[in-house]
Amino acid sequence: MKGLAMLKIGEIGWIEKDKPDIGPMDALVKPIALAPCTSDVHTVWGGAIGERHNLILGHEALGEVVEVGDMVKDFKPGDRVIVPAITPDWGSSAEQKGFPSQSGGPLGGWKFSNFKDGVFAELFHVNQADYNLALLPKGMSLEAGVMIPDMLSTGFMGAENANIPMGGSVAVLGIGPVGLSAVAGAAILGAGRIFAVGTRPNCIDVAKKYGATDIISYKDGDTAQQIVDATDGEGVDAVIIAGGSQNIILDAVNAAAAGSVISNANYFGEGETLPIPRAGWGFGMADKDFATGLCPGGRVRMERLADIVTYNRMDPALMATHVFHGLDSVEEALLLMKDKPRDLIKPVVIIEE
Amino acid sequence: MKGLAMLKIGEIGWIEKDKPDIGPMDALVKPIALAPCTSDVHTVWGGAIGERHNLILGHEALGEVVEVGDMVKDFKPGDRVIVPAITPDWGSSAEQKGFPSQSGGPLGGWKFSNFKDGVFAELFHVNQADYNLALLPKGMSLEAGVMIPDMLSTGFMGAENANIPMGGSVAVLGIGPVGLSAVAGAAILGAGRIFAVGTRPNCIDVAKKYGATDIISYKDGDTAQQIVDATDGEGVDAVIIAGGSQNIILDAVNAAAAGSVISNANYFGEGETLPIPRAGWGFGMADKDFATGLCPGGRVRMERLADIVTYNRMDPALMATHVFHGLDSVEEALLLMKDKPRDLIKPVVIIEE
Amino acid sequence: MKGLAMLKIGEIGWIEKDKPDIGPMDALVKPIALAPCTSDVHTVWGGAIGERHNLILGHEALGEVVEVGDMVKDFKPGDRVIVPAITPDWGSSAEQKGFPSQSGGPLGGWKFSNFKDGVFAELFHVNQADYNLALLPKGMSLEAGVMIPDMLSTGFMGAENANIPMGGSVAVLGIGPVGLSAVAGAAILGAGRIFAVGTRPNCIDVAKKYGATDIISYKDGDTAQQIVDATDGEGVDAVIIAGGSQNIILDAVNAAAAGSVISNANYFGEGETLPIPRAGWGFGMADKDFATGLCPGGRVRMERLADIVTYNRMDPALMATHVFHGLDSVEEALLLMKDKPRDLIKPVVIIEE
Amino acid sequence: MKGLAMLKIGEIGWIEKDKPDIGPMDALVKPIALAPCTSDVHTVWGGAIGERHNLILGHEALGEVVEVGDMVKDFKPGDRVIVPAITPDWGSSAEQKGFPSQSGGPLGGWKFSNFKDGVFAELFHVNQADYNLALLPKGMSLEAGVMIPDMLSTGFMGAENANIPMGGSVAVLGIGPVGLSAVAGAAILGAGRIFAVGTRPNCIDVAKKYGATDIISYKDGDTAQQIVDATDGEGVDAVIIAGGSQNIILDAVNAAAAGSVISNANYFGEGETLPIPRAGWGFGMADKDFATGLCPGGRVRMERLADIVTYNRMDPALMATHVFHGLDSVEEALLLMKDKPRDLIKPVVIIEE
Repeated sequence: MKGLAMLKIGEIGWIEKDKPDIGPMDALVKPIALAPCTSDVHTVWGGAIGERHNLILGHEALGEVVEVGDMVKDFKPGDRVIVPAITPDWGSSAEQKGFPSQSGGPLGGWKFSNFKDGVFAELFHVNQADYNLALLPKGMSLEAGVMIPDMLSTGFMGAENANIPMGGSVAVLGIGPVGLSAVAGAAILGAGRIFAVGTRPNCIDVAKKYGATDIISYKDGDTAQQIVDATDGEGVDAVIIAGGSQNIILDAVNAAAAGSVISNANYFGEGETLPIPRAGWGFGMADKDFATGLCPGGRVRMERLADIVTYNRMDPALMATHVFHGLDSVEEALLLMKDKPRDLIKPVVIIEE
Repeated sequence: MKGLAMLKIGEIGWIEKDKPDIGPMDALVKPIALAPCTSDVHTVWGGAIGERHNLILGHEALGEVVEVGDMVKDFKPGDRVIVPAITPDWGSSAEQKGFPSQSGGPLGGWKFSNFKDGVFAELFHVNQADYNLALLPKGMSLEAGVMIPDMLSTGFMGAENANIPMGGSVAVLGIGPVGLSAVAGAAILGAGRIFAVGTRPNCIDVAKKYGATDIISYKDGDTAQQIVDATDGEGVDAVIIAGGSQNIILDAVNAAAAGSVISNANYFGEGETLPIPRAGWGFGMADKDFATGLCPGGRVRMERLADIVTYNRMDPALMATHVFHGLDSVEEALLLMKDKPRDLIKPVVIIEE
Repeated sequence: MKGLAMLKIGEIGWIEKDKPDIGPMDALVKPIALAPCTSDVHTVWGGAIGERHNLILGHEALGEVVEVGDMVKDFKPGDRVIVPAITPDWGSSAEQKGFPSQSGGPLGGWKFSNFKDGVFAELFHVNQADYNLALLPKGMSLEAGVMIPDMLSTGFMGAENANIPMGGSVAVLGIGPVGLSAVAGAAILGAGRIFAVGTRPNCIDVAKKYGATDIISYKDGDTAQQIVDATDGEGVDAVIIAGGSQNIILDAVNAAAAGSVISNANYFGEGETLPIPRAGWGFGMADKDFATGLCPGGRVRMERLADIVTYNRMDPALMATHVFHGLDSVEEALLLMKDKPRDLIKPVVIIEE
Repeated sequence: MKGLAMLKIGEIGWIEKDKPDIGPMDALVKPIALAPCTSDVHTVWGGAIGERHNLILGHEALGEVVEVGDMVKDFKPGDRVIVPAITPDWGSSAEQKGFPSQSGGPLGGWKFSNFKDGVFAELFHVNQADYNLALLPKGMSLEAGVMIPDMLSTGFMGAENANIPMGGSVAVLGIGPVGLSAVAGAAILGAGRIFAVGTRPNCIDVAKKYGATDIISYKDGDTAQQIVDATDGEGVDAVIIAGGSQNIILDAVNAAAAGSVISNANYFGEGETLPIPRAGWGFGMADKDFATGLCPGGRVRMERLADIVTYNRMDPALMATHVFHGLDSVEEALLLMKDKPRDLIKPVVIIEE
């Protein structure tokens, strides 16, 4: 089978590999829709997870089950499924402790295109199929559905971890697809006022549709100060970091009220250390907590996020600005993600309607 | 000054009283919008809080500040304000413990038309004005604003206490104005599927606008069983009780999944005891918790709920089906609440635009 | 192999059965220490879970692994293990939702002596061995260790769910072994004053050693009223129900402060419904929540409770008032549990030191 | 009246001031026991809160009420009281939001020796006396009681915010009096294994009495690595920072498991920014949260901590290694705190038994 792989840091290409073996609890799946992720770009061109050779990329997919192991009960060949980006080891110690995404070690729930071949291939392997796959609801568009495995799950996590009080104020730093999902998540988790920080017109437009009430641009001055000024000097009840390099933490802490949560949904790719502003953090005593996490995965998560879409709480398809067709086009989609043209929010590849 | 009072159980009438005295932290307020509540009906005709003589009724009001005590800093005569139905004793032991509505004893935050004269009068007294009043945002309609002090605060509390997981399923039992607010609250607190149980067409219409996805009627069979059947035998992640007599608890527990919260926003007016169904409750071991509470009050609550309205998270004015004008008409509005014609959701009295 | 079984409701006896089959993730275990539980008594003589024929009893055991399935990685024959009373289906929907004890349906994590043969046998079957077994720490006494699978896990759950504030007041209703574990749990979860309600001298003695500060007896009057009086009319911050028939709920609610949690660790065996006192519950509005649950199980839970014992946070062996030796003596131990002599807290059967 | 003041940065001395005025809700109190705090040292010699002139120092006191305002109901002259280090503005916006220590601005609940004269004086002022004072229980030793206002409240906060699972593992970084209180707090909040990091023999001795199971010294290598090694490479479920300069955060994050809380109870006095180790933090995705806070204050907090002491959950007097007598000796005690001899844990000044 063929797949689009990271050949080494800085280089991608199509390769041939054997069909993956599956264990008794696993499934073999072929993709019906795919999306490249900024993480794929970091992985290949940023060397984010270190050197990898001939590792098939991709972790955002909808698929069709091709084969299942003996112990799989709830799925059979032909089922159309949502495949979470994160496929935890259910039952493991970290999972029993409440942290499935950290099963098998820090970030260990992230397997596709990290420890094992990803989903940009004719076929891919899913561990613990009964616990990790979810049926794709009939009638859900592939453009909407393919946002669930990572964009919605990660962005919503940012909002969930932010512990937003009913009617509370929120700032979302970064309005790429994760940030936009965080805006939507905040709006459907009880936020009142929502500041969205960004400048791209397409993203601003969707941010407003998702519930942003104020758009903040770095072009108008220090972003944290703008938010503090707009809240009578108080800062916001919650900040969600959804993009940026290490200094975004300075903005986040400075925009947060004394008594708030700074919720991180961002991958930090650079710097030996990340800087907390000492005074802005109240010298460690201002009740400005940090929440972090890795995209939640697993079956129940996918089913519940599918319900969010099915019952029209928000429309993820608004983020699918660029739609490609056919497995081969995933390369073009990935390169688009790398180039990030100004009108891009998220590219999607439809393989089989 | 005159006010509409409970003369004794079963009898209302207009009476004259002296203007209330105010302490150094208090305010004297005149109403600009009022709404009668089912509680007023329970109080007068159900004897819910016991015998009272010449007690002025009413606890849902928007007002204009007329006079303030020496220690009041943030409000002055002429300010238009939201007056919470519940005005806790901020700083008291119960409040420091996290239960402001229970300050001064069980349900002690409920003062208007319970321990002291209510708001259906030319003037009324507000304790700890700086901590209990909130400015009415300019431009907010009085019909919308007057839903905040009790309907939104109580209904949203039902949803907040239900601990709804992102995308989780919810059933709201009863779709009067508290139930409708609970439906809206659930939708903006991350619910996926929302079952609304009720039969009145007006209420059903608003329930759908507020986010209900399934309408359940007792005419179609046992309501709990209908919900269980619709969820593949599982029951829902959260049930909000927003109406009904004591047996509604049977429905609530039986409709709830093993692993769920039953959140009560209802006043139970009858019965020595209330029945939990033993088997449905898993013999006390099925992780079906009960959450209860009394409408949250105070300034921050009002400000945050005002933000929910200001930022268009939901439109409470949809519930104002009957609008009256002038203080005198509060009697007619209250009698309407008592009679509950089929097209009524909530009557509102506008006194001063 | 032989086992002590419920032959039918009201009758026990030794029977012969084939050695259980194990699947690829399972283990076959022989007991090295056992304890009968009040639940076993309810099961046989109370018909608590309905009719059962030739069902081997028992769910509290320490054991030695005899055989493991192909996929088991962390255990091998000869390992001495703690076997949780509740062995959830890790990865299942209920478990992913946060309720492992409810996996496979309400109370579905309870398999031993309910859906399948229990541990009072020469051998027994454990599902998902890697996820459900824990190594018995070297040096831990069997008398202490055998309290972990159910008594500590259930009693501590009662305290954990009670959400005790640091220095808060707690009442534990019932001081059998679950109640005593709840007392100990409350003390090591931050309680200040702890009321223990009971009359047996042995139990009172251990309750005090575990941290009870006040002993309340029904012989001195209404228990709830005694607690309310002792707390200046306020009631306690948390009540843990650890015994009693349905009316114990009346005491629990009446002893609880407005703003409290009533945490149930009790199996309710009788009554179509269980009664909540309407007035005591503040008509549903006094912030008196109910938390419920079934004994938590699984590997991490057992490991963590073993650490509680290893690090001397409390000594469970104090509850082992009657120690028997040899598998055969489990019958006598069970009958003792049924008879409940006044000096009994918990009988323990040691099979292999 | 006289008081020991910060004359300017780096200089202390006794000064004369007028007796403080009190408002209608306030109290005038004279100290009966005092303790200097590391914060006083930071304030004077570290310039921690900036320049201050003739500001009376001290915020840890037990006292006797001398005079009360007209609106004070629960206290009268002659009452012996616990005075919290932090005296929030109850009812304020931050308090209603759940953050009393941040009332009136970041860290605004900290008034003594920050915004107003402290307790090292013949008399001092307490705002909102009914809400901030607590009766000193009869029979409680002054050495024990004077630890409550700050040491226990801050150290316990460190443990409470750490969200320790029952039987979970904890590391406490720093075992001065706050760290020791954090160790005790962890032990009575359900911790299993507790690592205490420090080297002073007196402190180690008390740490063990308070429940530490493992003592870690920097002399034996990297402290985080020692903790990771001792936990089979996992790290601990919770880390409490109770001392150290900015680099202590590196240790904290590196010692924490993926899926953990790092709870800060430390004042960070230096550095423009504080460093989070990027890799150790899992690039922002390892579920290693930070919790922060300022010592909780107020009446209920003091009452509940007094109960912890009254009911013998731990003995704070073990920390009172150096006991002085008479108000004048507070200067010597403060200088001792500055010098930190090796056998010092905490100096206490007894003024009136």
